[in-house]
Amino acid sequence: MAKIIVGVMGPGSASEETLATAEKLGQLIAEQGWILLTGGRNAGVMDATSRGAKESGGLTVGILPTGDRSGMSPNVDIPIVTDVGSARNNINVLSSEIVIACGVGMGTISEVLLAAKAGKYVILLHQTSSSKAFLEEFSSPRIHFVFTAEEAITLAKELLQRQSNN
Amino acid sequence: MAKIIVGVMGPGSASEETLATAEKLGQLIAEQGWILLTGGRNAGVMDATSRGAKESGGLTVGILPTGDRSGMSPNVDIPIVTDVGSARNNINVLSSEIVIACGVGMGTISEVLLAAKAGKYVILLHQTSSSKAFLEEFSSPRIHFVFTAEEAITLAKELLQRQSNN
Amino acid sequence: MAKIIVGVMGPGSASEETLATAEKLGQLIAEQGWILLTGGRNAGVMDATSRGAKESGGLTVGILPTGDRSGMSPNVDIPIVTDVGSARNNINVLSSEIVIACGVGMGTISEVLLAAKAGKYVILLHQTSSSKAFLEEFSSPRIHFVFTAEEAITLAKELLQRQSNN
Amino acid sequence: MAKIIVGVMGPGSASEETLATAEKLGQLIAEQGWILLTGGRNAGVMDATSRGAKESGGLTVGILPTGDRSGMSPNVDIPIVTDVGSARNNINVLSSEIVIACGVGMGTISEVLLAAKAGKYVILLHQTSSSKAFLEEFSSPRIHFVFTAEEAITLAKELLQRQSNN
Repeated sequence: MAKIIVGVMGPGSASEETLATAEKLGQLIAEQGWILLTGGRNAGVMDATSRGAKESGGLTVGILPTGDRSGMSPNVDIPIVTDVGSARNNINVLSSEIVIACGVGMGTISEVLLAAKAGKYVILLHQTSSSKAFLEEFSSPRIHFVFTAEEAITLAKELLQRQSNN
Repeated sequence: MAKIIVGVMGPGSASEETLATAEKLGQLIAEQGWILLTGGRNAGVMDATSRGAKESGGLTVGILPTGDRSGMSPNVDIPIVTDVGSARNNINVLSSEIVIACGVGMGTISEVLLAAKAGKYVILLHQTSSSKAFLEEFSSPRIHFVFTAEEAITLAKELLQRQSNN
Repeated sequence: MAKIIVGVMGPGSASEETLATAEKLGQLIAEQGWILLTGGRNAGVMDATSRGAKESGGLTVGILPTGDRSGMSPNVDIPIVTDVGSARNNINVLSSEIVIACGVGMGTISEVLLAAKAGKYVILLHQTSSSKAFLEEFSSPRIHFVFTAEEAITLAKELLQRQSNN
Repeated sequence: MAKIIVGVMGPGSASEETLATAEKLGQLIAEQGWILLTGGRNAGVMDATSRGAKESGGLTVGILPTGDRSGMSPNVDIPIVTDVGSARNNINVLSSEIVIACGVGMGTISEVLLAAKAGKYVILLHQTSSSKAFLEEFSSPRIHFVFTAEEAITLAKELLQRQSNN
């Protein structure tokens, strides 16, 4: 039976604080027994959160934009080699039962928008006042803002429960 | 030799005013002898701008998310049937030499972000104060805001010129 | 209203004879007023058939595997930049109302199979005895073999007529 | 560190004998500690080989053509939801370190061709005389034919060794 897959999206370059949260998210996701899915590259939030999941004995999937494994995070267990460039952003969000976005970047917010458009729940951390104001304007019941990795996981559990009841 | 292709992106549902600008953009693009590229669906900005281009005798390309021509705008001359869903957003922007975004929508802003990330010039109209504030925060020299279809075309000409000089 | 789009698929490296047929196919497609669609690269059958279409004043679309226009045939009018690598083979066939395959190559026959699977008519030329035997084994009423460019176009006209009657 | 991923490709409808081999392949792949990757649908070879892997306690990845999990094999642990239709065939082969094709189908042979073109080793079983003759004509050192699941796994081990030495 399919395992629970939670995606963590975030920029390839991020602040220490954002990376620390990403790592913590990975740890907590692994502790829940969920599979962590990221964009798979050896950079920023993708790498930090995958490292966190491995520290807690989790399993990590990386959806790579490239046509081979070059540039892959060493913390990815299962690299999916798409060779579709940024079009893989849509695969990231469709493959995740819940999308957690940690930090702000062009690719990251494109994923948040694609996720919400596809009817996915999205939980956001480390947003700026302008990214928050922009995303709130859509008035989407799918988009949620939290402050800590722990809050993100608590909310993810609730939302997964709500989804499985539907 | 490859013709000049200008993409117009915008939501499938939009205000009368936004649709009127979209139609005007299509007319002006056709008058320049450029090819108009859109997401191809029979809805909102995509359809309005394609109709405008046809009114002025232009040629229109539609990059469809579906696996056949169902749901296509009747104003599309050349439908490209991708069957890749929202992943086609990236094809829209990569195939356009200049991207013009008219209005705000989840898909539209995902395209703006993918375009800027790919190094494309993006010209935006009919933004909200929050979408403008959000996009300005990236401080990207690629992202430009204008108020009218005429300004958009004047700026597009300048930017195309700048690109061809590089 | 959407124009008629006919795809010509073929290997990036081919014999003089195959290339001559490809060029002839391009000429005849343009003479019918149809749009020619190819894989867009500056190589083999794709380039030869696009050149033929331009010689007869036609319009050519190239579905590029790359993320920019590098490597594009100079005979492509409308380059579609997909950045999805060989996954663009499926876009080639879905966007073509009729697929003509000229010559044998790994990519070409993958397109023939994807086209027939998607319910497209496929017309083949310059096959080997083994590619013909292999494809005939599927007993698909969609797959047709001819010997000359002229026969291919005559058959394409019939099949387009049959499709528009459905 | 990335685990070893072996792909098993095959038609959605196949003979009892082919399905039995597919199931056996799944078992043997799991016994090697490799991850099994398939096209993920609840049909034919994809489902049979995933079932085999689960019988031996393995881990299974399914690369789905659809935009959600509908039609997924119940034997898939990690569904990757691509929404790119048959374009996902290329993701199947690029994500597999070795591709094993069991049986003949339009989609299956398209994957064999894409795999060989991308420089992947391909091991084939349950071919017809015409599919074998056709594929042999490419004289590719990447394409190998075997008769049993056991031979396929023995050869896969050798080829993985050869790859890791490069």
